[in-house]
Amino acid sequence: MVDLRSDTVTRPTSGMREAMATAVVGDDVFGDDPTVNDLEQHVAALFGHEAALFAPSGTMANQIALQLVAPPGGELLAGADAHVVTYELGAAAVFGGISTRTWAATGAALNVDRIAAMIRPAGFPSVSTAAIAVEQTHNLGGGGVTPLATLRDLRAVADAHQVALHCDGARLWHAHVADGVPLASYGALFDTLSVCLSKGLGAPVGSLVVGSREKIARARVIRKRMGGGMRQAGILAAAGRYALDHHVERLAEDHARARRLAEGLAPLGVVDPGRVRTNLVPLDLTKAPLDAPALAAAAASRGVLIAAMLPKLARLVVHLDVDDEGIDEAIAVLSVLLA
Amino acid sequence: MVDLRSDTVTRPTSGMREAMATAVVGDDVFGDDPTVNDLEQHVAALFGHEAALFAPSGTMANQIALQLVAPPGGELLAGADAHVVTYELGAAAVFGGISTRTWAATGAALNVDRIAAMIRPAGFPSVSTAAIAVEQTHNLGGGGVTPLATLRDLRAVADAHQVALHCDGARLWHAHVADGVPLASYGALFDTLSVCLSKGLGAPVGSLVVGSREKIARARVIRKRMGGGMRQAGILAAAGRYALDHHVERLAEDHARARRLAEGLAPLGVVDPGRVRTNLVPLDLTKAPLDAPALAAAAASRGVLIAAMLPKLARLVVHLDVDDEGIDEAIAVLSVLLA
Amino acid sequence: MVDLRSDTVTRPTSGMREAMATAVVGDDVFGDDPTVNDLEQHVAALFGHEAALFAPSGTMANQIALQLVAPPGGELLAGADAHVVTYELGAAAVFGGISTRTWAATGAALNVDRIAAMIRPAGFPSVSTAAIAVEQTHNLGGGGVTPLATLRDLRAVADAHQVALHCDGARLWHAHVADGVPLASYGALFDTLSVCLSKGLGAPVGSLVVGSREKIARARVIRKRMGGGMRQAGILAAAGRYALDHHVERLAEDHARARRLAEGLAPLGVVDPGRVRTNLVPLDLTKAPLDAPALAAAAASRGVLIAAMLPKLARLVVHLDVDDEGIDEAIAVLSVLLA
Amino acid sequence: MVDLRSDTVTRPTSGMREAMATAVVGDDVFGDDPTVNDLEQHVAALFGHEAALFAPSGTMANQIALQLVAPPGGELLAGADAHVVTYELGAAAVFGGISTRTWAATGAALNVDRIAAMIRPAGFPSVSTAAIAVEQTHNLGGGGVTPLATLRDLRAVADAHQVALHCDGARLWHAHVADGVPLASYGALFDTLSVCLSKGLGAPVGSLVVGSREKIARARVIRKRMGGGMRQAGILAAAGRYALDHHVERLAEDHARARRLAEGLAPLGVVDPGRVRTNLVPLDLTKAPLDAPALAAAAASRGVLIAAMLPKLARLVVHLDVDDEGIDEAIAVLSVLLA
Repeated sequence: MVDLRSDTVTRPTSGMREAMATAVVGDDVFGDDPTVNDLEQHVAALFGHEAALFAPSGTMANQIALQLVAPPGGELLAGADAHVVTYELGAAAVFGGISTRTWAATGAALNVDRIAAMIRPAGFPSVSTAAIAVEQTHNLGGGGVTPLATLRDLRAVADAHQVALHCDGARLWHAHVADGVPLASYGALFDTLSVCLSKGLGAPVGSLVVGSREKIARARVIRKRMGGGMRQAGILAAAGRYALDHHVERLAEDHARARRLAEGLAPLGVVDPGRVRTNLVPLDLTKAPLDAPALAAAAASRGVLIAAMLPKLARLVVHLDVDDEGIDEAIAVLSVLLA
Repeated sequence: MVDLRSDTVTRPTSGMREAMATAVVGDDVFGDDPTVNDLEQHVAALFGHEAALFAPSGTMANQIALQLVAPPGGELLAGADAHVVTYELGAAAVFGGISTRTWAATGAALNVDRIAAMIRPAGFPSVSTAAIAVEQTHNLGGGGVTPLATLRDLRAVADAHQVALHCDGARLWHAHVADGVPLASYGALFDTLSVCLSKGLGAPVGSLVVGSREKIARARVIRKRMGGGMRQAGILAAAGRYALDHHVERLAEDHARARRLAEGLAPLGVVDPGRVRTNLVPLDLTKAPLDAPALAAAAASRGVLIAAMLPKLARLVVHLDVDDEGIDEAIAVLSVLLA
Repeated sequence: MVDLRSDTVTRPTSGMREAMATAVVGDDVFGDDPTVNDLEQHVAALFGHEAALFAPSGTMANQIALQLVAPPGGELLAGADAHVVTYELGAAAVFGGISTRTWAATGAALNVDRIAAMIRPAGFPSVSTAAIAVEQTHNLGGGGVTPLATLRDLRAVADAHQVALHCDGARLWHAHVADGVPLASYGALFDTLSVCLSKGLGAPVGSLVVGSREKIARARVIRKRMGGGMRQAGILAAAGRYALDHHVERLAEDHARARRLAEGLAPLGVVDPGRVRTNLVPLDLTKAPLDAPALAAAAASRGVLIAAMLPKLARLVVHLDVDDEGIDEAIAVLSVLLA
Repeated sequence: MVDLRSDTVTRPTSGMREAMATAVVGDDVFGDDPTVNDLEQHVAALFGHEAALFAPSGTMANQIALQLVAPPGGELLAGADAHVVTYELGAAAVFGGISTRTWAATGAALNVDRIAAMIRPAGFPSVSTAAIAVEQTHNLGGGGVTPLATLRDLRAVADAHQVALHCDGARLWHAHVADGVPLASYGALFDTLSVCLSKGLGAPVGSLVVGSREKIARARVIRKRMGGGMRQAGILAAAGRYALDHHVERLAEDHARARRLAEGLAPLGVVDPGRVRTNLVPLDLTKAPLDAPALAAAAASRGVLIAAMLPKLARLVVHLDVDDEGIDEAIAVLSVLLA
């Protein structure tokens, strides 16, 4: 089986398993897990922030962050195709009472002026905008990378209107590797960030919220309320730390394989390899003989697993457990099915 | 004073006051107010629906309807400039746990294909779209009217995807008069509608939710929970019925005056009279010497009240209490300030 | 018909209708209704508070107040038989995210020590108590009146633990008349109060939240979000002011009639007249031949309307529209049914 | 250090670490983790239910279950000292919109008649009771065990009123061992149960919700929304399964040590050993020379960690990592401090 559904499917390496097996742990709800504490400080430092908090998933990390930056009845601006809007099952509204106004789906290609024009300032008889969320890299945007200069422009807009800026950085590591931007340069632009260890980095479980000491203190309360307080979480944190130490720079290999996969599928007219910047390869099936669920089912029966994201959109994800042979196999199987 | 801030500022006429003074009333929370019951049945019939429910405001009528058509964690699609998104202070998220995805602000000019493409169907690992809301006429869209044919296309899309359709009809009466579309033709296209008696129709207080008998039964519970259960509400309903009987067709006068107002201001480059279809006149102050709050303050000191909706957007609203002289006065004052 | 279901069923008197018919009004959402503004200032002054806000119902007034004194995730302590817990359909949880811990139902007979022991202080790993709500007079407590001394003890407890105190004063007027306690003496003990004009006072619609200027400013935003912003609400406020000026002291008549009603029913073993202090007469039907719904149905068919509150609890309410003859009639009908 | 703060502080044994190191895993969000699937089926079978779902904490397992059995605006009955009311930071209200009415704190000593009397049936104009939650063993009730016969009476009440019954079974294993009641006998009485692997059983992380196939299908959606969807969770599930296989029957040792600890402290007048049934030893400090925070601080400086639950309530918890020597040490240190 070649599993290209998501980079979340990676299994821990033997080194990572060794790290878990020997991790020194404690009760993290009491703040007593040294491996978790160490990971939190390490990740905070990577982004130049004061503090960070370990969480069981990217969804929880994002939702904790949104509750930090937007009050109930406050407004969040985000792309209509953002993970926080689309794949977190309405959590911001249900749990945080946060109202969402979205800009037309443009993936990583942000139109800062249009976003600026959407901000509802305080002092008018309407909802006021509390925060803006961006996603780097952008999942439904095909793994696209928003340039640092664009993010700086957005930060300036946020400052001018006194709204907070959150980065859904589930795959921020990939942007860092693709564009060569230091993590701290991203960190400097956001009030809060979420990052995931269990996607491209290959750890089994774990994400972090990054922010100021004051915000992370509040985040601990929210995490407890959401049921994200885990006990000897150091088992997971040890794997996460291992992933950070060994699996960041190697993402370049995934990016190269994704590019090769896209080039192999380009003749079928479903993907533009020039737009594949990281480890995601989106397939636009608008003109294809099969829709996404049908293609996913047919490919699965031939040993290649892919994700049906929308009726006409499939997604292939390259990761730690996919090698060159897997890429060849995927090209071969999909070429037959989409011919 | 010429008060063009909103058509909500109208004071009850003497006929309306007489209707209130002589209204037969009862305790409407117990279902015992004959005047309220009569109004509810009358409005339901106007739209060809089974039932209706009286509410203290358009915001409550909309929010009750949204809670009827979208569950907590469900998704509502609406325009980024919709009243339910912008002017109801996040109520759908805070009270209903409803997640909102918005299309780019286009006022009454709906792009049905683009809306259709935004629907997230059930069966994919994402939030699923429960309802779509449209606003007729469209407030931030300058009182624009969506053509019946467009709404029919939208209904077909809603049917095809099994999502509900809500009409924020605070000024649906104006669309009815402007386009000559029967109210029942609008009613036939929506699962729920809200309509207001206290805007253009001139009643002091009151809106209604319109829908099926089953929906309105649930609406009663939601209204009680939201604090909208009123006792001898027949006092207000009597005014509302008077407004329906006497003030609908006369909206054509308001539309004509609004058009004349727009023509008078057109030389200042802030409004296109050709786009003024009903009783709202939006002023685009992007290139004007004053921004909206400054213009509103300056006009107020000269006896003309207007609304600053956004930093660069002001709004003039023509209504029952504005006569030809008031229109002349407004043109004169604003022409000086915007010269 | 003798309607003893609730004091909410009163119909406006001719004086009150006259007050409504001649009320000077404006758009209260813009703060422009002089009659509403006047009523708000008058009621604030009665209770010795800085400000007050008009609302369409007691439920909304209570819920606004609770959202003022308890944050989402904060805890409210209240009696298990409190209106805010029992008759507002879960609004505090649904709309305010407020967690409720309740003391065993004791009506107006508060056990201050037990309440004090329930407070969860900040600094422990649990929910922390934000506010305590009491109800004066107490609806499910048979219209009982909590003595001022008890309320003062409770205030001392609240101060010692830095939690807020809210009074659900839907029938606080009755306590004022029954115990002769000045309204301002009650006002001094609470952070927020709600009072109703549409119950014993006989106005058709309207309640107020009373508190500090800062709280009432926030209350305006919450009211708008809940859909309680009404336009020419002065129509209703005029009736409310008339009720305050003419119908407070006369509540003593209702109290006397309620006492006489209880004495007339005492031989049936369903009520202890000695505990009837205000205008409510609870019937304990535990040993009666009919349960509450059956008794209500049977009495209704004989021209006497009563409320079935719980399977074994009925309630008779004396008010402006019940005279001595009605009391006699009710005693006669119920005596036959409960014999 | 003797750590008696909680049984959550246990560190994984070498056998458990070995189980984690060799666990076969997959992406559990996709349902692909065989170790998680196996654990879920195993635990469901233990309780005689159809299905179960792994979650990162007991709080999340409880909150998922509450959202399964009570709708927004529905009412949950629970003890005023229940974990779901006290230690989950208002989550039921904030996230589920669930209204809570509580009976006076009685720990495990349920008064079934009083609970029955609190149920608000549908058909009356009040909130209606959707569910009742009990906690077995009872944390703030000193680890008390509710007898099976009492739970059967409660089930009969729940059936009679058609309300659901949830068991917060974080330490249900201890009740099973203390009373010799088969797990399936507990399972048969509840619509939903939560159980924890990370407390007395000694696993690092993990709890489960148990219920019908239909409920657990809905639970998966709620878990995703709450951020509890983890990827290669089989690492944790392997430890949990090891704990179930090796650490249930040994809880009897903890119970015996807890009893001995209570007997050692009995002369100080802070605990009645006759009431210590499981692994918790509550200290009532009402008459003690130190309050709970002061005692905890003083004991900590002498190498004994205990939990300050409330100002006058401390808690000692015996677990896998506490041996006889630790018990002796705790008795010695606390005897000095409380003398």
